[in-house]
Amino acid sequence: MRRYFPILDWGRRYGRETLANDLVAAVIVTIMLIPQSLAYAMLAGLPAEVGLYASIAPLLVYAVLGTSRTLAVGPVSVASLMTAAAVGGLATQGTPEYLGAAIALAFLSGLMLLVMGFLRLGFFSAFLSHPVTSGFMTAVGLLIAAGQFKHVLGVPAPGHTLPEILAGLWANLGQANLPTLAIGLAATAFLAWSRKGLKGALVARGLKPRSAALLARTAPVAAVAATILVTWALGLDSRGVAIVGEVPRGLPVPTLPPFDPGLWAAIAVPALLISIVGYVETVSVAQTLAAKRRQRIDPDQELVALGGANLGSALSGGFPVTGGFARSVVNFDAGAETPAAGAFTAVGMALATLYLTPLLYFLPTATLAATIIVAVLSLVDLGALRRTWAFSRPDAAAMATTILVTLAAGVEAGIVAGVALSVFLHLYRTSRPHVAIVGQVPGTEHFRNVDRHAVVTVPEVVTIRIDESLYFPNARFLEDTVQHQVGANPALRHVVLMCPAVNDVDASALESLEAINQRLRDAGVLLHLSEVKGPVMDRLKRSHFLHDLTGEVFLTQFDAMRALAPELTCRTLAAGRRDLARNGGPG
Amino acid sequence: MRRYFPILDWGRRYGRETLANDLVAAVIVTIMLIPQSLAYAMLAGLPAEVGLYASIAPLLVYAVLGTSRTLAVGPVSVASLMTAAAVGGLATQGTPEYLGAAIALAFLSGLMLLVMGFLRLGFFSAFLSHPVTSGFMTAVGLLIAAGQFKHVLGVPAPGHTLPEILAGLWANLGQANLPTLAIGLAATAFLAWSRKGLKGALVARGLKPRSAALLARTAPVAAVAATILVTWALGLDSRGVAIVGEVPRGLPVPTLPPFDPGLWAAIAVPALLISIVGYVETVSVAQTLAAKRRQRIDPDQELVALGGANLGSALSGGFPVTGGFARSVVNFDAGAETPAAGAFTAVGMALATLYLTPLLYFLPTATLAATIIVAVLSLVDLGALRRTWAFSRPDAAAMATTILVTLAAGVEAGIVAGVALSVFLHLYRTSRPHVAIVGQVPGTEHFRNVDRHAVVTVPEVVTIRIDESLYFPNARFLEDTVQHQVGANPALRHVVLMCPAVNDVDASALESLEAINQRLRDAGVLLHLSEVKGPVMDRLKRSHFLHDLTGEVFLTQFDAMRALAPELTCRTLAAGRRDLARNGGPG
Repeated sequence: MRRYFPILDWGRRYGRETLANDLVAAVIVTIMLIPQSLAYAMLAGLPAEVGLYASIAPLLVYAVLGTSRTLAVGPVSVASLMTAAAVGGLATQGTPEYLGAAIALAFLSGLMLLVMGFLRLGFFSAFLSHPVTSGFMTAVGLLIAAGQFKHVLGVPAPGHTLPEILAGLWANLGQANLPTLAIGLAATAFLAWSRKGLKGALVARGLKPRSAALLARTAPVAAVAATILVTWALGLDSRGVAIVGEVPRGLPVPTLPPFDPGLWAAIAVPALLISIVGYVETVSVAQTLAAKRRQRIDPDQELVALGGANLGSALSGGFPVTGGFARSVVNFDAGAETPAAGAFTAVGMALATLYLTPLLYFLPTATLAATIIVAVLSLVDLGALRRTWAFSRPDAAAMATTILVTLAAGVEAGIVAGVALSVFLHLYRTSRPHVAIVGQVPGTEHFRNVDRHAVVTVPEVVTIRIDESLYFPNARFLEDTVQHQVGANPALRHVVLMCPAVNDVDASALESLEAINQRLRDAGVLLHLSEVKGPVMDRLKRSHFLHDLTGEVFLTQFDAMRALAPELTCRTLAAGRRDLARNGGPG
Repeated sequence: MRRYFPILDWGRRYGRETLANDLVAAVIVTIMLIPQSLAYAMLAGLPAEVGLYASIAPLLVYAVLGTSRTLAVGPVSVASLMTAAAVGGLATQGTPEYLGAAIALAFLSGLMLLVMGFLRLGFFSAFLSHPVTSGFMTAVGLLIAAGQFKHVLGVPAPGHTLPEILAGLWANLGQANLPTLAIGLAATAFLAWSRKGLKGALVARGLKPRSAALLARTAPVAAVAATILVTWALGLDSRGVAIVGEVPRGLPVPTLPPFDPGLWAAIAVPALLISIVGYVETVSVAQTLAAKRRQRIDPDQELVALGGANLGSALSGGFPVTGGFARSVVNFDAGAETPAAGAFTAVGMALATLYLTPLLYFLPTATLAATIIVAVLSLVDLGALRRTWAFSRPDAAAMATTILVTLAAGVEAGIVAGVALSVFLHLYRTSRPHVAIVGQVPGTEHFRNVDRHAVVTVPEVVTIRIDESLYFPNARFLEDTVQHQVGANPALRHVVLMCPAVNDVDASALESLEAINQRLRDAGVLLHLSEVKGPVMDRLKRSHFLHDLTGEVFLTQFDAMRALAPELTCRTLAAGRRDLARNGGPG
């Protein structure tokens, strides 16, 4: 019971001091969340109030089910863009069908996460390698920023890929609305500066660094308030500046997603991708914050909590939510101690929905676009491509592919291409494992690569060390390697496979070992193994291989050489001892 | 040059004795190949002469390009069934479009193999794990045998899946043609017996075992001759027995495949699957036979040779070919020494095409079906499922899935499902690697799993040994594992990751290591590594990780403990020495 409801754990020790801390954090997060909710609803192509709804029920559900003390869930940029991409192809923006599809997406994504949580299938997220995730975030940041530019210019520029968006912007550049552009650029400049300079300016005016940092995070609210005032005072809405307009007041009402099999089939893949991407982000943020206070999160329960939050969002007319990075950091820095802070934030958002919406009438969409652009540009990390290239070419290739395909063909194609390429390159890499022919280091019981060290060997025995688990992608490589050695050494009588790095042997590799054993027997050569790990030995014992093996299994490679080439080991050991005697020990 | 034309190598040492041996082998293989060629053409749904054509040019091309001395290429059962499945959906059997599609399939498959050979992409075949290949062969054997039963009964039973075929047989059972059934059952019984008992019977009559074995292989020719005679003598063709009929005489003429982009797109996937399945079979047979004589084959060149053979087949009006197992064994046993034996077989087949086809007029298709049924039942190995289950459950699951999907949904779906499941299960397995918390074996420098051995530890240091390469599927697992240890041990000051089994670290794992390092630092815990392999260390040096690492990299785990818990190593070593002194050494 406690596993599925962590609130039963922290709830019973809840005290007055914790309450005070949680309340302070909740107030700060609420102030930050209001413009974000509106902006991400706009990014998803949904009415502004849907963003507010998605910031109420999901927070309450997460407070009950979540294992992170400080994670703040709600609408985030990546999931919002993925929602727009998934729903945009199915219905026209502004129609009830569009909203229904977004709600169904949250519902299905919630169901999938719940099922993965109950079945402990968090493993699925492992397919999303870091280069793919990082490349995807960079591409999404660029896509979102480009896509929001139409609101700054006040022109239409539809599309879900970079070429489409840029073509639209270029074609309509001449019709840009100047007051919109002025507001948009001013807000973008202010918000960009607030990220770097505002904290310092506030500290210079006497604020404590921590308060200054938190206050700087509320810069979007200042931008919202200022641009609302300017738009209202100058009547800019009548001069072409797009505004948020009438936002319905009142709490969300219980909603059911449309149960249309065709729709569900169409959103199944996007829902799965949103679930996995959202989960990866959520767990990564939650784990980072938990570590700072030596707390633990339960990754499987986080699936349940995030699933519950998305179901909560769908059933209250909202769209897909995940744990937000910036928001959670603010919550943490503001002193949140338990998930109750999230519940209090939900109350704050509910109050905003009830009483604040009339104030948002004159809010220019250009301000929201500026909020989004500044927020998402922090996702863009092209330097990661360079760093990854230095570390691993295949990983860099997977990252570059994810970025290019996401930009050129959209978010779903980007993720799928990245995952497919990472899996393929991983299999390719392990299909040609590092293999060394080893010989004895004179005077020791050590065996090293003949190409790198001055070691001794005998022509009758070849020892092949395989530095990889033996499984299907490299099974044939193993056969080829042994075959090559047999063909190249006419004096060969013994082949020793040295297996200290073999962590696993699958059925394909077993078959290859059996084929090698048989082919060597046909060629008059015995096959031996050395330094086989316990679990691998246990597994081999469940087959006929050890029974059919022409040679022996040696505990150590030295044992193998002592048995197969006694004259060599004696000679080199003796030589080694003479060296030792002359030089006074191995040092 | 010699790499791509092995004939330049063996051709210059060709002598009279080799010629004699090759000629004998060629005669025997030709006799065996005539009924097989006709039967596999029938299995592919093609006219009988196409089978003969596919047994001429491909053998000549392989003789020039192949690296195996004894491999016999030509039409085989699996590729024939895959051809029927691929082409059956595109055109009606018996039409020029059907033949054209089969020719295009051979052409495209040949091109693909050539490209893979030039780019050294033999790696692709590694995706076909042994359980998938084995399960696929079993399913194909059952599918083919069931599908040929219609010829034994003399009723129609179309379809490419087991349910379709069985439904067709069941519905038409009442219309079975009795003379056909008599011929079919007699031929099947004789051929089945010839596989087990004929060799013994011939030896009992005074033949040498080797000659008896070779003669037993020509049993299908005896069955063909006998049933032709019976059909002709009794006029069975007028009593409903289907016969081969008129086979055009004459050599194949140069043909070009139809260049229709729609057709090529439709056969691209089948062509790739036929190429890979055929290649895997070819290399496996070639390697097994080469090993018996300590010869070598070049797997990359085999791609080129098989590609050339398929292009040769297509350009002479044939269908996809591969290296055949039974045929190659006969060739080997009959004493073939060089690929010239294949070229002589091609000459034999050309003579058969020129002069033998009138004799085949009265050949009942039931006899050909019997040949196929008896041949393919040797592919069926359901015991492999049990053996694989004992060895590895995931591999058995992949095998069972391949069998079931192939039987129920056809050959292409079967292979794709099997490959996808093997890759998935492999990633799943490595995503939860074996991880051990280790402690020091008292009195030694060895460190072992705390759960299995009586070892000593200190509460300030936890050492985690990971028995797997660190890469994206297990990167998060590593984070979770470390996080769990930190949460569970309040006194913790040092985490040591012991890496003797880590063969590789990819960018995802690097990111996780960096996250772990940072989270541990936030929690006041230092991260250390021990026993890192050279290549892994080289790679880590190309990142910032070693620079940011809060702790140290120790050469051995003993060094790590001596530095981090000196009191422990001293105490246990001292205790160990006392034990040694008392007990007289470690034995």
